[in-house]
Amino acid sequence: MSRLSPTNAVPTPARVGLIGFGCVGQGLYNILQQHPEAGFTVTRIAVKNPTKLRPLPANRFEFHADDLLDDPELDLLVEVIDDADEAFRLVGAALRRGRRVATANKAMVARHLPELLELQRDFGGTLLYEAAVCGSIPVIRTIDSYFAQEPLRSVSGIFNGSSNYVLTRMREDGSDYTEALAEAQAQGFAETDPTLDMAAFDPRSKAVILAAHVCGLLLNPDDVLNLGIEHVSSADIRYAAARGQKIKVVATVQLLPGGGATVYVTPQLVPADSPLYAVEREYNGVLVEGEFAGQHFWQGRGAGGHPTGSAVLADLVALRQGSRYTYAKLDASAAVATPADLGLEVYIRNASADLLAALDLAPTSATAHDSAAEYTSGYTRLSQLHQFRDVLRAAGAFVVRTGRVRPVTQPETASLEAVFETE
Amino acid sequence: MSRLSPTNAVPTPARVGLIGFGCVGQGLYNILQQHPEAGFTVTRIAVKNPTKLRPLPANRFEFHADDLLDDPELDLLVEVIDDADEAFRLVGAALRRGRRVATANKAMVARHLPELLELQRDFGGTLLYEAAVCGSIPVIRTIDSYFAQEPLRSVSGIFNGSSNYVLTRMREDGSDYTEALAEAQAQGFAETDPTLDMAAFDPRSKAVILAAHVCGLLLNPDDVLNLGIEHVSSADIRYAAARGQKIKVVATVQLLPGGGATVYVTPQLVPADSPLYAVEREYNGVLVEGEFAGQHFWQGRGAGGHPTGSAVLADLVALRQGSRYTYAKLDASAAVATPADLGLEVYIRNASADLLAALDLAPTSATAHDSAAEYTSGYTRLSQLHQFRDVLRAAGAFVVRTGRVRPVTQPETASLEAVFETE
Repeated sequence: MSRLSPTNAVPTPARVGLIGFGCVGQGLYNILQQHPEAGFTVTRIAVKNPTKLRPLPANRFEFHADDLLDDPELDLLVEVIDDADEAFRLVGAALRRGRRVATANKAMVARHLPELLELQRDFGGTLLYEAAVCGSIPVIRTIDSYFAQEPLRSVSGIFNGSSNYVLTRMREDGSDYTEALAEAQAQGFAETDPTLDMAAFDPRSKAVILAAHVCGLLLNPDDVLNLGIEHVSSADIRYAAARGQKIKVVATVQLLPGGGATVYVTPQLVPADSPLYAVEREYNGVLVEGEFAGQHFWQGRGAGGHPTGSAVLADLVALRQGSRYTYAKLDASAAVATPADLGLEVYIRNASADLLAALDLAPTSATAHDSAAEYTSGYTRLSQLHQFRDVLRAAGAFVVRTGRVRPVTQPETASLEAVFETE
Repeated sequence: MSRLSPTNAVPTPARVGLIGFGCVGQGLYNILQQHPEAGFTVTRIAVKNPTKLRPLPANRFEFHADDLLDDPELDLLVEVIDDADEAFRLVGAALRRGRRVATANKAMVARHLPELLELQRDFGGTLLYEAAVCGSIPVIRTIDSYFAQEPLRSVSGIFNGSSNYVLTRMREDGSDYTEALAEAQAQGFAETDPTLDMAAFDPRSKAVILAAHVCGLLLNPDDVLNLGIEHVSSADIRYAAARGQKIKVVATVQLLPGGGATVYVTPQLVPADSPLYAVEREYNGVLVEGEFAGQHFWQGRGAGGHPTGSAVLADLVALRQGSRYTYAKLDASAAVATPADLGLEVYIRNASADLLAALDLAPTSATAHDSAAEYTSGYTRLSQLHQFRDVLRAAGAFVVRTGRVRPVTQPETASLEAVFETE
């Protein structure tokens, strides 16, 4: 929506300065070239490496991104570089000049959101970042604007296309993790550093960004648990399949009964009746639970130059109109905090007895120990998993969440069915 | 999104005049009562029937809706009455006064969209109608705004919760149509006149509204084919199930190769790998195909007081900000037109030989005639189905689309797999 008249005239082409020409930058560039009636012209393109071979003539590129920030001929800036620190330096400098900027850099936004909010407030610029979360799915603007006054209970989902691609391929073909990862990389779905995707740093950034819009929670990503699939085996995939379930990496922003909210990302057993069960390959899926709106589910491409470029284009249209996020939940929720601790059911494979003891893992009565497969299932705490995250990774352990996170005061004997019934 | 500063202060309560207090009106009223921090107060409520028993004290109601239109104390108006003609009279009068109005009346908007656009243009008022299409799913604003510059190929889906509820119940329980309809009515999902839902007039209205935003097509609903499920039998449900498919009423806005677009609503065989397959009961599901954004799928509650009320609340928030639809595709697409004719594969049960001949139904080689079940499958034209729609209904015939609609010049022998592969 906009404040334009319904008889909006053909827009004057807005001049765009593009910083970065990787997958997303090229995707956006192609879209704008193929679709001039959108009304945007890429006037300048800044890249880092002067020697890299590129699909456009060399004279289209320059190498000092800072020069674009001061150019009064540019109406809008797009930042789509890989390096989060440099991205923050550039976006911060642009906002200090009151500029309108679109970014796709999830790591940068997640780590610096409080400062980015302050810069917009102090200097009157605008930053939009739809493409940073779930590629082409309009998750940020829908939660920020459409659900501005809807009390949300949770937003969760599959936020990382490359780890989801790996899990799909392992299940479909029985291929092992290394093969499936190589295939995802060949398809161009994985980040330059696969750890970001596979160890769930990437979906953690997205969940941290979403939390600000879902419930006004501003978190340091380091304080949020992320467990990934680096040590998943085909035995785990079969274990889930035998139970009619799939393993998916699910990121969750969850409001808690009695107040407060929490954010975590872990592999999870997803039952067949969850909409997330059918989200395969590089697709992302988002489940939203609203008090009045009920359950919503959105699915779309979470990666790829054109889908992500399309999301950046939507931000350019919004920036041209002078739109900005409302952050409606941010002021309304001074009281939202992460509680001291939360409990959850997990299963763990390939953890030593010492590590299980350190996690204070109390085996549950139902499926205490599956000796054949060396799984231990039981109840532990979010804080303990967080504390031992790196130890678990180093030990090659694989952890799957089998129930919903809940306050430690709640009864610990809830059945899986009951725990999952609202997901 | 809005133009408000990120530090948006607690909003001054906006005064709302509510016209209509049925399912949606009460849903909205409850939400605003339970959630005063949203910043809206229902100041006046106008209803038609002074003698009807209502859940609020009698002194909360008045009986001359016109009085609200002129009240300068009201900031926003909500029209949620049943009667489409009266709704148009009231909304038209409000727009002539330059007012900001939210409506949930799909039949009214579908029939009068060109006039409603002109009134907004001439008098500066605003009409939003998110709740008119797919209940709580933000389909209008997302297509209108997020996809403003995305070339869309099709938008299709399950737009009617009560017919979908009937189909789900028939499949789950083997119950017959009459039983399942009575159940839907008891659950409060059906319109007052079940024909609107079951004969697919309701999803047709929604598809006509969407077409304006998807591709700038303004259609008279009477010119759009709607076939429903009034004559579905449990044999049809079993026929689909035996093929691993489900019958769903699917509304489609489809852009055609070579230009032009078309809109139609029919029962359809939906394969298990379509996201629509899993949309059950009163849920609605929407599939969007974009050239760059790829395939998107949205699912949410399509009916019910709170979900629909939540969508009206989102419109109130947008109206308070001064937002309006962009109708970006409307001016951009002077050339979009419905082509002279289109062909499609169907199966028909319970049609006389004369009627089949009138439809010029050329049986396809694959499944020419299933004598046991009295099905005829073959290729016919959209215009013929439209011409004989009422004859088909009167004869008790049941028609299911088994392939995608396509220009009549295209080869008629495409396999079902090929026809459905993009859906």
